[in-house]
Amino acid sequence: MNALPSPVQAPPSAPEVLDRCRELVRPELTEAVGRLHPWVGEMAAYSFGWCEVGGAPSVAPGGKGVRQALAVLGAEAAGASGRAGVAGAVAVELVHAFSLLHDDIMDGDPTRRRRPTVWKAYGTGPAVLAGDALFALAVGTLAAAPGGAGAVRLLSAALADLVRGQADDLLFAARPWTGPERVSPREYRTMAEHKTGALLGCAAALGAALGGGPPATVAALDRAGRALGVAFQLVDDVLGIWGDPAVTGKPVHGDLRERKKTFPVLAALASPAPGARRLAALLDSPGETDAASALIEELGGRAAALTEARRHTAAARAALAAVPLATGAAEELRCLLDHLVVRDL
Amino acid sequence: MNALPSPVQAPPSAPEVLDRCRELVRPELTEAVGRLHPWVGEMAAYSFGWCEVGGAPSVAPGGKGVRQALAVLGAEAAGASGRAGVAGAVAVELVHAFSLLHDDIMDGDPTRRRRPTVWKAYGTGPAVLAGDALFALAVGTLAAAPGGAGAVRLLSAALADLVRGQADDLLFAARPWTGPERVSPREYRTMAEHKTGALLGCAAALGAALGGGPPATVAALDRAGRALGVAFQLVDDVLGIWGDPAVTGKPVHGDLRERKKTFPVLAALASPAPGARRLAALLDSPGETDAASALIEELGGRAAALTEARRHTAAARAALAAVPLATGAAEELRCLLDHLVVRDL
Repeated sequence: MNALPSPVQAPPSAPEVLDRCRELVRPELTEAVGRLHPWVGEMAAYSFGWCEVGGAPSVAPGGKGVRQALAVLGAEAAGASGRAGVAGAVAVELVHAFSLLHDDIMDGDPTRRRRPTVWKAYGTGPAVLAGDALFALAVGTLAAAPGGAGAVRLLSAALADLVRGQADDLLFAARPWTGPERVSPREYRTMAEHKTGALLGCAAALGAALGGGPPATVAALDRAGRALGVAFQLVDDVLGIWGDPAVTGKPVHGDLRERKKTFPVLAALASPAPGARRLAALLDSPGETDAASALIEELGGRAAALTEARRHTAAARAALAAVPLATGAAEELRCLLDHLVVRDL
Repeated sequence: MNALPSPVQAPPSAPEVLDRCRELVRPELTEAVGRLHPWVGEMAAYSFGWCEVGGAPSVAPGGKGVRQALAVLGAEAAGASGRAGVAGAVAVELVHAFSLLHDDIMDGDPTRRRRPTVWKAYGTGPAVLAGDALFALAVGTLAAAPGGAGAVRLLSAALADLVRGQADDLLFAARPWTGPERVSPREYRTMAEHKTGALLGCAAALGAALGGGPPATVAALDRAGRALGVAFQLVDDVLGIWGDPAVTGKPVHGDLRERKKTFPVLAALASPAPGARRLAALLDSPGETDAASALIEELGGRAAALTEARRHTAAARAALAAVPLATGAAEELRCLLDHLVVRDL
């Protein structure tokens, strides 16, 4: 029998990277959630897709686990074992779960990942409490890790940004489409950096810090994660209007129906072309989402969002290239970046 | 003119102690709240009684400031300046404000200190966000303080207890007055230790830790604060049934009308006397609060609560006596203890 030629080791795909990191983090994440009050722990487990209401095991889809992967890869990029980043990974996944839980209450969203949100399933009060518990658990997990003080400072800064971004996002909803009070694309980008970028940056930075990386590496990974977060949000905005519902799992023109002030819309409204005024009227007409999406594209909203997303993707790559990083981890970080931002465009 | 005889320095009264600590902490607390997003900061300031809805200055009564005083006195008791405890004082006041904000949502309470609660004044979603912001600010303040890692660990432990206590409190409401599923006085005491005691203990312990006190002192102050918290809650329970509305600012038999499972009620229901069964029926009859309060007293519920409160007050005193503390601060701590627990009984 002839021996098969030994294949060249292919670089891992993004789903493989995400899976590997999820498997590394899962035992400690499960253990942390298991320390919660049983009732609160059930709500937390439900939000992760691990159980149904009542506690029966479930395999509902959870999140992609990008934040935990960034923390693990951040530690590896700093030259440590991925295990060094696990406490940070657990903390950022808990913070992410907390923010989804509370944001769903604030936004009145009844479903997430095709299941009822926690407040819909358990009630608003219990969902507030479950979010608080996840928040406290995140801080406690990180404070208990070696080198905790600096790590907790990184997390605190991200939490402050997260709240600031959510506040702006809530306030944007009440502002007009046009006139001096309208939301500028720049304000939107800052909001996205706070609401989405800060925790992604924190995840990668936490991994590097817990892995013993020097301040320049921690700062570079923070910048890379933040830029990735903004790029990700911009791509999400494009998909929220023009994405294929079969792929995104969201309704056609969903963001337009919900009258969301997303980047493509705001960029189109900021256009000096006469169509911008017509767009404002269309956006207030529930049946006109086809016409609105076409006009947003015509006014350059889609192109502006994609240009901005590419700019932030390049900034993330530049941040990764600015400091010495372990080769394999850096490659996996770039692979994750491409996967998240390019997606289904 | 004859010189007046120089008076012996009287020990400060509890209100004087509270005022001194409030004045010491106020600048940093104000500064911290000022770092919040302006809209969120207004909700926080409203909750402290510093402004009205819309931001106009106000002098509405805030809380007593017991937690900040314990942190300042904890630092002084450990031999440091009270200033050393200020970061801890700010953190515990922020956590207390956060917990009131979220608890008012969970409990559906429309007023606090004779004003609309934050969720009533600003909406549920914004109030959830304001609570989150206060929580994040508390952690950030403490993480930024020198010696932050140990301090954040103390705060995290208290936060975990706080959430656990609130979870039990919410679940108690759904349990029956009698039968095997009833809430035992012991379960109630544990809930009160988590919900009220943990943060008071944390406040005193944080002060001692930030003041450089040895672990035994930190632990003793934690025990003292926890015991004080339980005693305080038990006295509050007695006042909630038998307190003079002119003094408490709460309606006569308020806790009975709201069918709260407080210690006197649970102790009376646990009595082997035949009246216990009759009490369960009275508690479900809205018009029978006079009869219920008389029967609770007859069944020994009031006496049991006061005995338990005295036991915890003695435990707090014993904890303070178990370690060497700076004399003046220890005296002020005992003075505060008496003031809070004896009150208007």
